[in-house]
Amino acid sequence: MVQYSTARLDASFAALSDVTRRGVLEQLARADASITDLAVKFDMTLTGMKKHVGVLEDAGLVTTEKVGRVRTCKLGLRGLQEEAAWIDKLRHLWDARFDALDTVVEELKRREKARGRKKRK
Amino acid sequence: MVQYSTARLDASFAALSDVTRRGVLEQLARADASITDLAVKFDMTLTGMKKHVGVLEDAGLVTTEKVGRVRTCKLGLRGLQEEAAWIDKLRHLWDARFDALDTVVEELKRREKARGRKKRK
Repeated sequence: MVQYSTARLDASFAALSDVTRRGVLEQLARADASITDLAVKFDMTLTGMKKHVGVLEDAGLVTTEKVGRVRTCKLGLRGLQEEAAWIDKLRHLWDARFDALDTVVEELKRREKARGRKKRK
Repeated sequence: MVQYSTARLDASFAALSDVTRRGVLEQLARADASITDLAVKFDMTLTGMKKHVGVLEDAGLVTTEKVGRVRTCKLGLRGLQEEAAWIDKLRHLWDARFDALDTVVEELKRREKARGRKKRK
């Protein structure tokens, strides 16, 4: 049984709810980048980008390291395993639910057919 | 190539960023429920639960139907395919990145070993 950390999932799903932050993660999955690089790439002020990186860092999705005047951002090590696992769990429940509905519909059809045959006799 | 709807992903990840809303989705994946049922189950006021359901409804994850005085909530039909696909895409990029790093580390080790052999000669 997977144990989900409530606070962690709250923070990471909130971090993923912004198109720029998702873009930053995609970018960092390809290569590390400084805050300045990211601000230029996403056509944003340094202050705006710092805020987005801060949200990703608080959610544990990104780590940053300052060397001299440059702060370099990297993907965090924890990945998105828990988030993927939670979504998968819900999708399984969901699919099981629709499969169960299909079974009910099939059963109703079968009965309807049987009734039709009885009537014809 | 999967096309992601920006607004949809923003809304659904934001909807998933709250433990009560995730709980409501898990509950509805098992059985439909009225707002009152959900409020009781999650020990919350009707108004509070209505707000949460509203957020899930706006994100397209839940549909509601009012019959008489009872509003019944069901899972929406669209599922979480796009959200799962986005997370998978990022995880693949991420894994590829770490695999590439592994290759670099292996190459450095190989060179180090070769240098060691040369020195001993």
